[in-house]
Amino acid sequence: MDKIKIGIIGAGRIGKVHATSISRQVPAAEVKIISDVQTEGLREFADTTGISQVTSDYRDILNDPDIDAVMICSPTATHADLAMAAARAGKHIFCEKPVDLNLEKIRETIRVVRACNVKMQVGFNRRFDHNFNRIRQLITAGELGAVHIVRITSRDPAPPPPEYISQSGGIFLDMTIHDFDMALFLTGSPVTEVYASASVLIDPAIGTAGDFDTAVISLKFANGALGIIENSRQAVYGYDQRVEVLGAAGAAEAFNDKPSTVQLSSASGVITDKPLYFFLERYTDSFSEEVRQFVEAIRGNRETPVSVEDGLEPVRIALAAKKSILEKRPVLLEEISG
Amino acid sequence: MDKIKIGIIGAGRIGKVHATSISRQVPAAEVKIISDVQTEGLREFADTTGISQVTSDYRDILNDPDIDAVMICSPTATHADLAMAAARAGKHIFCEKPVDLNLEKIRETIRVVRACNVKMQVGFNRRFDHNFNRIRQLITAGELGAVHIVRITSRDPAPPPPEYISQSGGIFLDMTIHDFDMALFLTGSPVTEVYASASVLIDPAIGTAGDFDTAVISLKFANGALGIIENSRQAVYGYDQRVEVLGAAGAAEAFNDKPSTVQLSSASGVITDKPLYFFLERYTDSFSEEVRQFVEAIRGNRETPVSVEDGLEPVRIALAAKKSILEKRPVLLEEISG
Amino acid sequence: MDKIKIGIIGAGRIGKVHATSISRQVPAAEVKIISDVQTEGLREFADTTGISQVTSDYRDILNDPDIDAVMICSPTATHADLAMAAARAGKHIFCEKPVDLNLEKIRETIRVVRACNVKMQVGFNRRFDHNFNRIRQLITAGELGAVHIVRITSRDPAPPPPEYISQSGGIFLDMTIHDFDMALFLTGSPVTEVYASASVLIDPAIGTAGDFDTAVISLKFANGALGIIENSRQAVYGYDQRVEVLGAAGAAEAFNDKPSTVQLSSASGVITDKPLYFFLERYTDSFSEEVRQFVEAIRGNRETPVSVEDGLEPVRIALAAKKSILEKRPVLLEEISG
Amino acid sequence: MDKIKIGIIGAGRIGKVHATSISRQVPAAEVKIISDVQTEGLREFADTTGISQVTSDYRDILNDPDIDAVMICSPTATHADLAMAAARAGKHIFCEKPVDLNLEKIRETIRVVRACNVKMQVGFNRRFDHNFNRIRQLITAGELGAVHIVRITSRDPAPPPPEYISQSGGIFLDMTIHDFDMALFLTGSPVTEVYASASVLIDPAIGTAGDFDTAVISLKFANGALGIIENSRQAVYGYDQRVEVLGAAGAAEAFNDKPSTVQLSSASGVITDKPLYFFLERYTDSFSEEVRQFVEAIRGNRETPVSVEDGLEPVRIALAAKKSILEKRPVLLEEISG
Repeated sequence: MDKIKIGIIGAGRIGKVHATSISRQVPAAEVKIISDVQTEGLREFADTTGISQVTSDYRDILNDPDIDAVMICSPTATHADLAMAAARAGKHIFCEKPVDLNLEKIRETIRVVRACNVKMQVGFNRRFDHNFNRIRQLITAGELGAVHIVRITSRDPAPPPPEYISQSGGIFLDMTIHDFDMALFLTGSPVTEVYASASVLIDPAIGTAGDFDTAVISLKFANGALGIIENSRQAVYGYDQRVEVLGAAGAAEAFNDKPSTVQLSSASGVITDKPLYFFLERYTDSFSEEVRQFVEAIRGNRETPVSVEDGLEPVRIALAAKKSILEKRPVLLEEISG
Repeated sequence: MDKIKIGIIGAGRIGKVHATSISRQVPAAEVKIISDVQTEGLREFADTTGISQVTSDYRDILNDPDIDAVMICSPTATHADLAMAAARAGKHIFCEKPVDLNLEKIRETIRVVRACNVKMQVGFNRRFDHNFNRIRQLITAGELGAVHIVRITSRDPAPPPPEYISQSGGIFLDMTIHDFDMALFLTGSPVTEVYASASVLIDPAIGTAGDFDTAVISLKFANGALGIIENSRQAVYGYDQRVEVLGAAGAAEAFNDKPSTVQLSSASGVITDKPLYFFLERYTDSFSEEVRQFVEAIRGNRETPVSVEDGLEPVRIALAAKKSILEKRPVLLEEISG
Repeated sequence: MDKIKIGIIGAGRIGKVHATSISRQVPAAEVKIISDVQTEGLREFADTTGISQVTSDYRDILNDPDIDAVMICSPTATHADLAMAAARAGKHIFCEKPVDLNLEKIRETIRVVRACNVKMQVGFNRRFDHNFNRIRQLITAGELGAVHIVRITSRDPAPPPPEYISQSGGIFLDMTIHDFDMALFLTGSPVTEVYASASVLIDPAIGTAGDFDTAVISLKFANGALGIIENSRQAVYGYDQRVEVLGAAGAAEAFNDKPSTVQLSSASGVITDKPLYFFLERYTDSFSEEVRQFVEAIRGNRETPVSVEDGLEPVRIALAAKKSILEKRPVLLEEISG
Repeated sequence: MDKIKIGIIGAGRIGKVHATSISRQVPAAEVKIISDVQTEGLREFADTTGISQVTSDYRDILNDPDIDAVMICSPTATHADLAMAAARAGKHIFCEKPVDLNLEKIRETIRVVRACNVKMQVGFNRRFDHNFNRIRQLITAGELGAVHIVRITSRDPAPPPPEYISQSGGIFLDMTIHDFDMALFLTGSPVTEVYASASVLIDPAIGTAGDFDTAVISLKFANGALGIIENSRQAVYGYDQRVEVLGAAGAAEAFNDKPSTVQLSSASGVITDKPLYFFLERYTDSFSEEVRQFVEAIRGNRETPVSVEDGLEPVRIALAAKKSILEKRPVLLEEISG
């Protein structure tokens, strides 16, 4: 079977991650075109990753009959419109999260994608992580029994610049959204209630921008299970990505990945490595794995492992968390209809 | 200096733990009398621990001029009255937690104890645990910087019988109260807000008794820090007692204690011991250490390491958690005046 | 049944450890007399541990008809003679290791002890350690299958003073002897061959005294299994006491005990506690457990858990190791007949 | 700069590993030709890895003027002759270990390679492993101080078939050779003495083939440090690859790599993953890293990170180990001149 031909829209950090991992790790696909409004240096990048075409106009991708699928790696505000345009052009879609910050816009995207009968996967890469997958397997294999408590610890090594914060949609839509998706992925049960508590403890500029840098979110699931998400924009020891699930038959905890297993015992203590620094290091393999499975879904004409519908619920929960903070009360998910 | 002479009121499980640990681990004290309404078999126990006198009337302890201090190990409902009686008899007091379930009763106890000028320590034994103490030391030494998030994981190996539940005051006053105290001990900052979420997932009889078996409690501290407590009445792998503190300069986590450090690698995996089974095994040393420090405080005429006032706040927070569950909203501590 | 009455000969460090642990942890026994050639300060020590009699003449112990058992904690050179004298006085014997550095003297002791029909236990306390016992249990339960390789890592935190070295009999008889006993205890198979390799890498004064501070000893067991012992007189991070056994069905490894389970994650790494400092901290419980079992053996008229014969083989292996170093070749145990 | 063009001689397991990792992980190189005496199925493999030419005659590689470097992945007996032929053809050489089992043949290879002025790297891939590199870095940075003891634990998950054994040169030349190289790599000090002890405990057929399946090798280094290598052909829990170095200032230990960090706590214990199964899983990254650095050395005209001379010493030590077993005595390296 021929290689799947991909066009990447948006050549920022994540667009380049996907281009590189496809060239190295996804032999069943190739990136044919990459587009960005800003093409400076892009030709050079394309050469090193074997991409033949560079453009400043994403329509060159949508209009190319050779292209099977597009990867939308542009700013969030453009995701939904680009996805709908791609769907109408008959292209399969891999779209970075979140699909949009507006629920109605996401619903519209879902309708268009389904009407055009193309596949669309949302970039919740952590579902493809070896550790979290192992926990998911333990749950689905029944090794933990019914889930009682899910805890997700998610801390960045350093806060983003205030400019980033102001356009991010806030910590819940920018950072916690991955954790909301993980909670859904692990439990397989809808969230029915959210209570969020948050503070500005790291950088006052984040507060000035109307956001928080430290948050604790309490979840309730339809099946009665309870959830906790812990977020911090700054863990000085690095990227802290852990999950623990307590079930009726046992508990499973995923600890951090580290650069080495070496333990140094010295007069000052027993020292091991800090966690892998940030998401590019920590989730490298998950980025290639999500695309590999996306490509396999296209080749096998199967449902993608994360669907466009999966892109909706984490945004709803994030909006519920925002409302909870504003109104200082627990918010039922049914209040967030869009 | 002569040994401190102690009378123990209540010869249930915890009364016997204290009697035994004093006889073995606290050479500066001796238990002279032990009382219980039910004295069957008590004489034999007294013999093995070197206690000379057994009685069914606690007043024999209060009236004995040789007795320096009493340890109140009787049912919760009797704590405050016995403490006040002991204070009036001029005895120093070690009182099991909680002092009472009623805030006004606790305040009255504080007043009487202070007026009688005796010392009173409340049995928050976990403050004397080697692991939690180490975390406290790291915080006070400034190694973690300002505290941002405190997480306390506290799970029992098996639920108590429903009869116990119905008299316990509920999970927050019975179980979480230790965790509330730990949160205060570690942060040194008052709790200002509580939101509790809870389910009955383990034993329906617990629900029938009006209580919960699984709970997640979200805390806010006066200094802006956030807290989370996770409770379960049944972790099938044993007693799970962990604490993690994230601060501006680092994080510290206390893992479980285990019977051995042995790791077995076999065809089915790499297996280590389960945690020490329950509180008697896990907190053995803390039980003798809290009494040792109580005795030292009396001998040195110093303040006890946990004061009678320390007995009040965890009850307030537990009552706020109860109110939060009932009213499905976060509760400010200032609403709980007593 | 009455308490076993014990006399302790030798009030140095280990004699005091035993006296203290009996008073606190072995309710079925009491120390009635303690003797030392140097009695300064001994009366005070006796008071705090409830020992009624202090003497400079060990014969006061042997002549006391109340005494059931003696604990020989005096210098090595006196062990065998004291043990034989005690046996002839009809006293049961607990003797610190090694029984003697001379094999014939040990054999004579065995004959006298057996002829006098008293019990004698040798102080190989590590057999009572929770970690090593767990490994022994895994072996005897068949969980590891046939033993293939035993590795014992045994490192002190700091070297003893040169004066001590010169009287110690050398590293193999002083330090490794415990590891030789552990190898026999774990495998239950005799050692048939020894090859020792050693260096002076820590303190030249140790070399000047004719000894080594770093050693690796290779063992062969009768059942074909192989053994390795690693010794160092100075691990700057503390007392390193680990054991690993590889068997046909799995491997078991005992890691170090530590003061707490706390892990500190900071910008400079993830740091945990160093091992417990030295043998008094590390093996505290084993010291009381070995005496408790000795006392139980007397009370129950059963064989002691470590026999006087068990005191012979580790000395033979140590002498083989010494010969191996001198002659730069592997030495068969059958060459060391005594 | 143009890509380095590589020909691979030998398309067995390791030849294919290199071909695949170059195509995915070494963008600065490409495999142009692959040869094997047995070409069945090879064309298909070549297609999936982008290799344009397949041949049954390695001379097609040596005669191709486009080829910059050859990778010798054929059976051991052919290594030295192929390396010399490649050198004479002016090709740089990457040669799997061991260069030869005969020291004189290796010395001849070294002379030819140096005379022809080509680069030659020997495939000691473990030097490129993230864990062992970290230990090497700690040593060279002085964090461990002078090295006192090196311990290498190296156990396979399952024994090779007896046919393999009979052609392997024996456990020391086949398996331990990697560990001998690691010992040299870590300490940077020559080995001066070897004592080997070995048994047949796993598969009697291995004994029938004149080899051993369980071995312990004791090393002495020129600087006085001591070494231990532990080998087993069967650790039922998987590939066990650990290293520990004790130095004057501290110790460093590398533990096994595992598929995930997940810990499952259940009623039967606390269970983590087994180590990565075997060398292909465990050392994947080291295989691409060694080739990447080989290619960089060619491009930068620098010395390769492992030299042809580095291929000699581990064979000498292995021959000393063989002699030690045969003669039941420690063997000085100076006895093994070749």
